[in-house]
Amino acid sequence: MSRSDLASQVCTYARTIELLGNEWTLMILRELFLGARRFDALQCQTGASPHTLSQRLKRLEREGILRREAYSEHPPRYEYRLTAMGRDLWPVIIAMKIWGDAWLDERLEAGHTPVAITHKGCGRTVVPQMTCPECGEQMHAHDAEAHISEEFKRARDIARSQS
Amino acid sequence: MSRSDLASQVCTYARTIELLGNEWTLMILRELFLGARRFDALQCQTGASPHTLSQRLKRLEREGILRREAYSEHPPRYEYRLTAMGRDLWPVIIAMKIWGDAWLDERLEAGHTPVAITHKGCGRTVVPQMTCPECGEQMHAHDAEAHISEEFKRARDIARSQS
Repeated sequence: MSRSDLASQVCTYARTIELLGNEWTLMILRELFLGARRFDALQCQTGASPHTLSQRLKRLEREGILRREAYSEHPPRYEYRLTAMGRDLWPVIIAMKIWGDAWLDERLEAGHTPVAITHKGCGRTVVPQMTCPECGEQMHAHDAEAHISEEFKRARDIARSQS
Repeated sequence: MSRSDLASQVCTYARTIELLGNEWTLMILRELFLGARRFDALQCQTGASPHTLSQRLKRLEREGILRREAYSEHPPRYEYRLTAMGRDLWPVIIAMKIWGDAWLDERLEAGHTPVAITHKGCGRTVVPQMTCPECGEQMHAHDAEAHISEEFKRARDIARSQS
């Protein structure tokens, strides 16, 4: 399966992966959420080469996840800002950070976290969690039952029959 | 910056990206959460080559995200199951699915979603959301204030000075 196959899939998760599921794009998103706006800042904090960074930024702009704004005309220089579509990726980015804090840093219990999150609404420093919007309970994998649509089922049957 | 640089970073998000931030690993995780256990099933639904799939499964096992269990001795055959560390990735996977539903499928308002989620606790079909565990409010990007640790700040200053 190629990247373009992923993009055309019934599964919206697979389409998301095709768009964002690479280390550079995910690092760029971290920086944008931390407030970086300019090419140089994005480059030094992600470690991407100028070519790679430029390609990824173009794709993100084309897909509507960020927009460019000129801040200098001579020479032409741009700032990169998340759109509403881009800002809506916050739960994805924060979920990865939370998982990394919990499982990839043995010092966490000693209060080490590279980025602490304060909820502006209530002022407390928190670890956001996935919850059910109906009953308000936190949801883990075992609390969720997945129901696959008929269309997705058909696509999966085809994949199975072709293997 | 190479992948091994990402793995050694102060930032737990960067470490998560090094481990999971590639399309095949993220597709394998989808399948494991949908209940796939066997190599053949993982292969046909992710579309990964046997070599790629085998490499990614080995890495995930080595990192503690899944474990192998023999279901046949002659020939030797294994099932792959998420560990507690792996199951704890559910918020990451579900956040990507929710974003894809919202932004990459124009038919969603007509009730199309490839995978509907029922919360077993209350029995309702829901779109889980990130919330503040202290006050219970849903959290978006603009509700969160990020505080960078001194250690991470120093690492970022070094990256800036070397660019």
